[in-house]
Amino acid sequence: MTVATNERHRLGVIGGLAALSLDAMASVAYGPEAIVLVLALGGANAIGLTLPVTGAIALLLIVLVLSYRQVIAAFPDGGGSYGVAKKYLGRRASLVAGASLVIDYVLNVAVSVAAGVAALTSAVPGLFAYRVWIALAVLALVTAVNLKGVAHSARMFILPTAVFVAAILTVILAGLLRGEPAVTTASAEQAGQVHAIGILLLLKAFSNGCAALTGVEAIANAVPSFRKPRVVRAQRAEVVLGVLLATMLLGLAVLIKKFEIKPVEGVTVLSQLTDASLGHGFGYYVVQFSTVVLLALAANTSYGGLPVLAQLLAKDHFVPHVFKLRGQRQVYRYGIWFLTLVAAALLIVARGDMNTLVPLFAIGVFVGFTLSQAGMVRHWWHSRPAGWRAKLALNGFGAILTGVAAIVLTATKFTEGAWLIVIALPLLVLLMEVVHRNYRRIGERLELGRIPDRPTHLRSRVVVPVNGVSKLTRHAISVASGLGHDVVAVHAVNASDPDDVRDFNRLIADWERWTPGVPLIALADDRRRLTDPIIKYVRHCELETVFVLIPEVEPDHVWQRLLQNQRGAMLAHALRRDTDAIVCRLRFRIHDTEPSTDPTPTLVTISHNA
Amino acid sequence: MTVATNERHRLGVIGGLAALSLDAMASVAYGPEAIVLVLALGGANAIGLTLPVTGAIALLLIVLVLSYRQVIAAFPDGGGSYGVAKKYLGRRASLVAGASLVIDYVLNVAVSVAAGVAALTSAVPGLFAYRVWIALAVLALVTAVNLKGVAHSARMFILPTAVFVAAILTVILAGLLRGEPAVTTASAEQAGQVHAIGILLLLKAFSNGCAALTGVEAIANAVPSFRKPRVVRAQRAEVVLGVLLATMLLGLAVLIKKFEIKPVEGVTVLSQLTDASLGHGFGYYVVQFSTVVLLALAANTSYGGLPVLAQLLAKDHFVPHVFKLRGQRQVYRYGIWFLTLVAAALLIVARGDMNTLVPLFAIGVFVGFTLSQAGMVRHWWHSRPAGWRAKLALNGFGAILTGVAAIVLTATKFTEGAWLIVIALPLLVLLMEVVHRNYRRIGERLELGRIPDRPTHLRSRVVVPVNGVSKLTRHAISVASGLGHDVVAVHAVNASDPDDVRDFNRLIADWERWTPGVPLIALADDRRRLTDPIIKYVRHCELETVFVLIPEVEPDHVWQRLLQNQRGAMLAHALRRDTDAIVCRLRFRIHDTEPSTDPTPTLVTISHNA
Repeated sequence: MTVATNERHRLGVIGGLAALSLDAMASVAYGPEAIVLVLALGGANAIGLTLPVTGAIALLLIVLVLSYRQVIAAFPDGGGSYGVAKKYLGRRASLVAGASLVIDYVLNVAVSVAAGVAALTSAVPGLFAYRVWIALAVLALVTAVNLKGVAHSARMFILPTAVFVAAILTVILAGLLRGEPAVTTASAEQAGQVHAIGILLLLKAFSNGCAALTGVEAIANAVPSFRKPRVVRAQRAEVVLGVLLATMLLGLAVLIKKFEIKPVEGVTVLSQLTDASLGHGFGYYVVQFSTVVLLALAANTSYGGLPVLAQLLAKDHFVPHVFKLRGQRQVYRYGIWFLTLVAAALLIVARGDMNTLVPLFAIGVFVGFTLSQAGMVRHWWHSRPAGWRAKLALNGFGAILTGVAAIVLTATKFTEGAWLIVIALPLLVLLMEVVHRNYRRIGERLELGRIPDRPTHLRSRVVVPVNGVSKLTRHAISVASGLGHDVVAVHAVNASDPDDVRDFNRLIADWERWTPGVPLIALADDRRRLTDPIIKYVRHCELETVFVLIPEVEPDHVWQRLLQNQRGAMLAHALRRDTDAIVCRLRFRIHDTEPSTDPTPTLVTISHNA
Repeated sequence: MTVATNERHRLGVIGGLAALSLDAMASVAYGPEAIVLVLALGGANAIGLTLPVTGAIALLLIVLVLSYRQVIAAFPDGGGSYGVAKKYLGRRASLVAGASLVIDYVLNVAVSVAAGVAALTSAVPGLFAYRVWIALAVLALVTAVNLKGVAHSARMFILPTAVFVAAILTVILAGLLRGEPAVTTASAEQAGQVHAIGILLLLKAFSNGCAALTGVEAIANAVPSFRKPRVVRAQRAEVVLGVLLATMLLGLAVLIKKFEIKPVEGVTVLSQLTDASLGHGFGYYVVQFSTVVLLALAANTSYGGLPVLAQLLAKDHFVPHVFKLRGQRQVYRYGIWFLTLVAAALLIVARGDMNTLVPLFAIGVFVGFTLSQAGMVRHWWHSRPAGWRAKLALNGFGAILTGVAAIVLTATKFTEGAWLIVIALPLLVLLMEVVHRNYRRIGERLELGRIPDRPTHLRSRVVVPVNGVSKLTRHAISVASGLGHDVVAVHAVNASDPDDVRDFNRLIADWERWTPGVPLIALADDRRRLTDPIIKYVRHCELETVFVLIPEVEPDHVWQRLLQNQRGAMLAHALRRDTDAIVCRLRFRIHDTEPSTDPTPTLVTISHNA
C-alpha cells in the first residue's frame, strides 16, 4: 500500500481504522470457526464452551490493545516488531521478529484467500469442488493488481470495512432478538459422542481461536500515516479496533451457543450464523459477499507489508539485494512474486481449506507480539519517564501473556502443522544470517568503504577466434583493433582430421590474400574438441589481461538461433570456467540497424577529473 | 556405428551380413504379426491367407534384392538413397529421400524397442503392465551406450544374429515336423465373426506386412565397409540376406496357417509359434531372448545411421549446424539426442505397442526404395553400359513396384497413422528448405567466399557503469584503460529520490579523493529505471564502437548468484536489445585463482603477416 506523504492525505481515526485494521476485522470470519472446530471434538455439549473461550481471547485482546497504546506513544515513527526488536533486543531477536513477520504475511494471504473462498462456497455450494482453483484465481487477481502498482487510498477501504462491520453487528443483533433460528443447516448428527471435556481441549480451542487476534499490531506499525496529533489518533483507532473486535467476537460466541452451531463441511460457521439470524435471503448474501470482499482486501494488505519489509531486510543485507529492486511501475516485483508463490504453494497443499491453515497462522503473530512487548519493557527500563513502572508492568504482563500463548499455541497445535513453523522460523533466521555473512565477506573482499589504489593500465591482448575470412571476421578484427594494439586471431585445427586441415589451409591462403595486419595463430591439436587448444593458449599468454572477442552472427529472429552452431557459446562457457580471460561475445547483426533517432538527449552532468 | 577404415578390419560376407542386416532380420519379429493382425479382421478363415500375402511380399523382396545388387555395382562408394537422389534426381528429391530416411531411423528405433519389449513381455507376462517404462529404459540404455561412443566391431554382431536366425529356422523346422501344436495360447474366441474377405483387406495385410522388408537397403549403403572385392562381397551378402529373409518369412507364414494362430493381446505371434513348435521350455526362452537382444541391436543401428545422415545434411546446410558438432567422445550428441527424444515421444504416444507403430514404418522406407530405384533408372539412361536396357528395366520395375507399394501403404493405412507421415514428410522437407534458405541468406550477408575489405581501426569508447568506489571499480577501470584511451565511468542517478542523490554525492566525493584519471559522468533522470539513462547515453555517443564493460562480482559458489542483484544482467540485456554497443560483463572473482600450472604447452604455429 502506498502511504501518502502529504498531510492532507494522511489518515484520520476512521480512515486509519479502515486502512490498517481490515486485516484484524477480517479474522472474525475464521476466528470463531477455529474455536468451534476444536470444541466439536469434545461433543455437542463442549460447543457451549465457545463463550468462555472467546471471553479469554477477548481479555487477551484488551491487554494487547492497552500494550499497543503504549507502543504507539513510545514509537511515533512506527513500531513494527522488526524495528523495536532491532533497537532494544539486538540483531538475533530482530531477525526472529523479521522471520515471524515474513511467515505472518505469507499466511495472512493464504488464510484470507482460503476464508474468502469458504465464504463464497458457503453461499454458492456448487463452487465447492473448484475451491483450490478459485483460491488461485483470487491470488492471481491480487497479484496482478499489485504488480500493476495501482495507488491505494485509505478512503477506498472505508466502505467495504463499514459494510462488513455493520453486517456482522446486524447478524448479532438480529440473532439476539430472534427466539428460534430462521434457517438451520443440516449437519451429520454425531449421536452419543460425549467426550470428556479436558483442559487440553480448552487450551487447544483457545489457541486455535487466537487467530482472531492477528492484525491488531498493524495500527502501531503505521503511526506516521495518521494526521496530527498522530499518537492520539492512532491510539484512539487502536482502542476502537479493540472494542469493535471484542464486540463482534463475543456477540458471535453468544449466537454460536444460542443456535447450537456445529461444524459442517463446506459451510462456514459465519454462514450458519447468518442463516440462523437473517434467514437465507437478501441479507444473507450481503453478509457473505461483504465477507468475501473484506477477505480479499485483507489478503491484499500483505502485499503492502511484505515487499517493504523485504526491502528493509535487503538494505540490512539479510535477504538477497534483488528485493530492493523496483520495477518499471515502482513496485517491488520480487517481494510480490515471493509472496504469491509461497501462498499459492500453501493453498495447494492445504487444498484451499482455511481450517488447515489457521492453526499455523497465530504462532508467528504471537512471536511478534512477544518480541515487541519485550522490547517495550527494555525501552521503559532504560528511559524511565514518569509512571514508567506501571507502563513496564503492563508491557511485561503483555509479553508474558503473549509469550505463554505462543508456547501453548505451538504445543497444542504441534502435530496439526505447528511443527512447520517450528522448522521454518529458525531456518529463515539461519538463512538470513548466512546471507548476511556472505554479503559481509564480499564487502570485505571488495574493500567497500575504503578508497582503493589508483587504477593501473593493464597490459592486454585481444584474442579473436576465427573460422574463416568473411565480413564477420572483418568486423571482429576491426573492433579488436580499436580496443588494443596487441590483437591476434587464433584458429584451432585438429591435425588428425583431413577435412579440418583442408579448411585450415584455405583459411591460411585467404588470410594471406586478405592481409588484415593481424597475425593468425594456428592452435594444432589432435583432438576434436576445439575449445581445449584455445583455453591452453589463453592460459599461456603471460599477460595481465587476455580479452577474448568471440564473433557471432546475431540473427534477425529468435528462432534463427537454432541455426547457429553452439561453438561460440561452448567456447565462452569453457573460457569463463577455466581461465581468467575476459570473454565477450561480439554479436554481428545481419541487418543494418537504422541510426538512432531518439529525440530527447539525457541531461548529462560531467565531473571531470581526468 | 564406427566403421573401421583399415582393410583388415573391413567386412567379409558373414560379418557384413551380421553388421548390416540385423535390422532387416529383426523385422521377422514384427512383419508376420502385422499381416495376421489385419487378416484377423476378416475372421478366422482369412488368417489362412497369410501364406499368399507373404508370398507377394517375398516376390517384392526378390525384386528389391536384385535391384540392390545393381545399386551395389553402380555405387561402390555407397549408394544411400540421399546420395543417389542428390546425384540423379536433384535437390528436392534428395530432400524427400533425406526426410524419409530421418523418419525411418526414428521409427526403426521406436518399432524395434517396442517389438523387443513385446517379445520380453510375451515370455514374462508379469512385465506387460510396465511395457512403456521398460521400453524407455531400453531406449535410455541404447542412448547411453551411443553417447559413450563405444567402438563397435562387426564381429560383435555375428553371434546374436546367428543365434537368432538359427532359432527362427529351428522353430520353422520343428513346426513343420510336428503334427499338433505343442502348446496353444488361449485366445478370446471370435465366434461367428466371418467377414467378407475383400481385396482391400488383402491390400492392407500386404502393406502392413511390408514392414518386414525394412532394412534391406543397408548393405547397399555401406559397400565401402566390405573387404575387396567389395562389390562382389556386398552383392553376395545382399543375396544371402534375401534368401534368409524370404525363407524365414515364408516358413513362419506356413506355420501360422498350420497352427491356426490368432492375434492375442500381450503375446506376440512369434511367441505363439515358438510355443507351438518347441513347447514352453528352454528352447522357447532361447528364441524369445535372442529376439529381444536382436531387436535392441536393431534399434542401435539407427544410432549409427541418423547422426551421420544429420551431419551430411548439416554440411549441405539443410539442418542446423549443431548436428555437425562432435562431443568430447567423438559422437554426434545432437543427432543421438534427437533420435532418442523423438523415439521416446512415439513410444509414449503409442503406449509401447509395436502394432500401433508398424503401420507408420514401411511408408518412409518404400519412399526411399522408390527414389533410389528411380535414381538408378536415370543412372542407366545416362551411362548406358553394356546390357543397360535390362538393368534399367529391372530398376524401373523395382521403382514402379515400390512406388505403387508406397501409395498402397499410405492409402490403406491412412487413418491408422499414415496421415502422420503424410504430414511429417513434406513438413520436414519444407523445414530443411527454410533452414537452407536462411543459411544462404546469412552467407550472402557475410559475403562468404569473398575476401572482404581490410579491417579498419574503429574509434571506440569504453563505458564503465559504476555504483561506488571499491576494488571492483578499480579492477574495471584498470581493464578498461588497457582496452582504450577513451574511457568513461557513468553513473545513473534518479534525481527525485533523496537516497539516490545522497549515494551519488558520496560517489562524487569518493571519486575526487580517488582520482582514477577517468571522468565520471552522471546520467540524471527522474525515473527509477537505471537502464534508460545509460541506454540514452550510449545511443548518443557518436562513435563507431561503444564498448560497455559491466563490472560484476563473480561468486565462489553457484548458489551465491542468488545474492547478486540483477542490475548487471538487466543492463546487459537492455543494451543488447536497444543499442549497437558491444556489451561485456566483467566478472571479478572474489577469490584469487592460483596461477596456471598447466604443464603441457600447446603446439603453436604462427603465420605472421602483421
